[in-house]
Amino acid sequence: MTGTYAGLQSVIWTGDKLDLLDQRLLPEEIVYLPLTSAEDVWEAIRHLKVRGAPAIGISAAYGVVLGSSSATTLEEWSAAVQKEAEYLATSRPTAVNLFWALDRMKAAASRFVESGLTLESCKEALIQEAIAIQSEDEETNRLIGEHALTLFKDDMGVLTHCNAGGLATAKYGTALAPFYLAKEQGMNIRVFADETRPVLQGARLTAFELQQAGVDVTLICDNMAGMVMSKGWVDAVIVGTDRVAANGDVANKIGTYSVAVLAKAHGIPFYVACPLSTIDLGTPTGADIPIEERGAEEITEGFGKRTAPEGVKVFNPAFDVTPHEYVTAIITEKGIVRAPFEENLRKLFEA
Amino acid sequence: MTGTYAGLQSVIWTGDKLDLLDQRLLPEEIVYLPLTSAEDVWEAIRHLKVRGAPAIGISAAYGVVLGSSSATTLEEWSAAVQKEAEYLATSRPTAVNLFWALDRMKAAASRFVESGLTLESCKEALIQEAIAIQSEDEETNRLIGEHALTLFKDDMGVLTHCNAGGLATAKYGTALAPFYLAKEQGMNIRVFADETRPVLQGARLTAFELQQAGVDVTLICDNMAGMVMSKGWVDAVIVGTDRVAANGDVANKIGTYSVAVLAKAHGIPFYVACPLSTIDLGTPTGADIPIEERGAEEITEGFGKRTAPEGVKVFNPAFDVTPHEYVTAIITEKGIVRAPFEENLRKLFEA
Repeated sequence: MTGTYAGLQSVIWTGDKLDLLDQRLLPEEIVYLPLTSAEDVWEAIRHLKVRGAPAIGISAAYGVVLGSSSATTLEEWSAAVQKEAEYLATSRPTAVNLFWALDRMKAAASRFVESGLTLESCKEALIQEAIAIQSEDEETNRLIGEHALTLFKDDMGVLTHCNAGGLATAKYGTALAPFYLAKEQGMNIRVFADETRPVLQGARLTAFELQQAGVDVTLICDNMAGMVMSKGWVDAVIVGTDRVAANGDVANKIGTYSVAVLAKAHGIPFYVACPLSTIDLGTPTGADIPIEERGAEEITEGFGKRTAPEGVKVFNPAFDVTPHEYVTAIITEKGIVRAPFEENLRKLFEA
Repeated sequence: MTGTYAGLQSVIWTGDKLDLLDQRLLPEEIVYLPLTSAEDVWEAIRHLKVRGAPAIGISAAYGVVLGSSSATTLEEWSAAVQKEAEYLATSRPTAVNLFWALDRMKAAASRFVESGLTLESCKEALIQEAIAIQSEDEETNRLIGEHALTLFKDDMGVLTHCNAGGLATAKYGTALAPFYLAKEQGMNIRVFADETRPVLQGARLTAFELQQAGVDVTLICDNMAGMVMSKGWVDAVIVGTDRVAANGDVANKIGTYSVAVLAKAHGIPFYVACPLSTIDLGTPTGADIPIEERGAEEITEGFGKRTAPEGVKVFNPAFDVTPHEYVTAIITEKGIVRAPFEENLRKLFEA
């Protein structure tokens, strides 16, 4: 791993505690919370101090380490690992990465005990397991970034929507990974960040983390994307995704579909960056992805102040689906996939 | 004029001052500001207390009245009218109605002086000229609404961007006029209102004034327009405009261009509603329309709360230009104009 990553890390293991960037305070304040117990981690996940599926999973893994570190016998330690993992699983009952990371920690602990390690060795090996979860995520994102960067050139303008960045992951993020790598290599990419209404992840997180890392980023409102494209300032679009269907349809933050249509109308390539774990061959098409609708207040009083009339009817879908016809390529840690997506996505998993 | 118009009036002349609805405070508070000088009016236009091309033009006309009312000789009055009109023209760069109204006031004043009116008669005649601008606007908008309504059917879904409503004009608005007339006639049109970042005219004004009038309106974020269209919920788009160039290119609130591109991609007609005074045959194409850029703080802390990192680079154009290829028709008080726009817009003025 290179040491020149300029982004903020959301999760830092110090050797005996977890320093967690409190994302609720961004972009106004950069505060790392020192978490020293499983209870601290549970509370941080529950109250959205940490967000992004990979970052939540990583935090929970360290939570198991913290919750079991004071055990004085192997039996006590084994029981603590199981108990704390079950407890941490209750922090966000719907987060799949959370369960995945906790199951991995439990399985690792059982393996260590079965293989006859001493208590101290078990404790150390469990720390290494959590570190592995974090560094594998980092490695995945770095590979995504390297593949993505082959599509970009010096001085290009690239537009992104929402936040698929380092804050949501161990490091680098997915869609933002090529920008960090470009920075490391002295390449200049001009990034346009859609603010991403209603929750403003683009303004609060993407603009923030890229600015912190010294990447050339310009914040725009979502409705300016078309104009910026028409000026010839955008050479490519790259976004993350919450789920890719087997046919290449992409579910992502609301507004992604509009960006994709605009990109196509301007002859601009539209790229999606994600790890293989986000591609769900069990979901045939985008029509099979349930779209969560959220509360009206995100739109009517999202800025801490009422900005729409009381009682007005609101439509607030959290995600939309971009049909694969609009997707130029999907960039994974195993390489770049282009149409026909149905066939080529399947091949990724066969390789 | 019918008496069933349910909207609020944005500009009210009381006989010696201008009562202006402070649109920045909507929808929370309905406050009329008493304006008694040209400076008051300049400041109100500059700081968006009044917005909408016709309402700005009407306000500026009364601003000339206020700025010249204390003159004690005909020469002094003539000079004041010219001077205040030039001063008021500096308040906003893009709105052609502003210049049109001010030119009309200047020409009227010259005419009154040349025809030998006394100072008091000149002053009174100039007030009448401003009142005429306002009442002609109301009549114009009603005619625009009647023409526009011929394009709509009962139970249609129509999307609009920003606010080209009663609040932006003397009454009825331009793009919103058909909705008020449909309501008067018992027709049901389902309106989708883009919230229109950064200043949220769609949320604060369009949703507000349509809700007040009992029109079926659903508020969405700008980035949801594509998804709503893809669901088949939108049968037409209608927007206002700040200036139409001779070739039919349309300058309007930022985000209009994105909506037009999305409409075309979904096979949805894109209509522009405006009075003849907004069509500027002296501006050959959209490229000749200056686009005002506004302060970063509208995006980074638009609602009294910082939502983007300090010092982040921001691009904040107030308007964009929709090329005439995206425009299905322009709806004026003299009828509906379709391509070829260059020829057909010219004919409007020859008739």
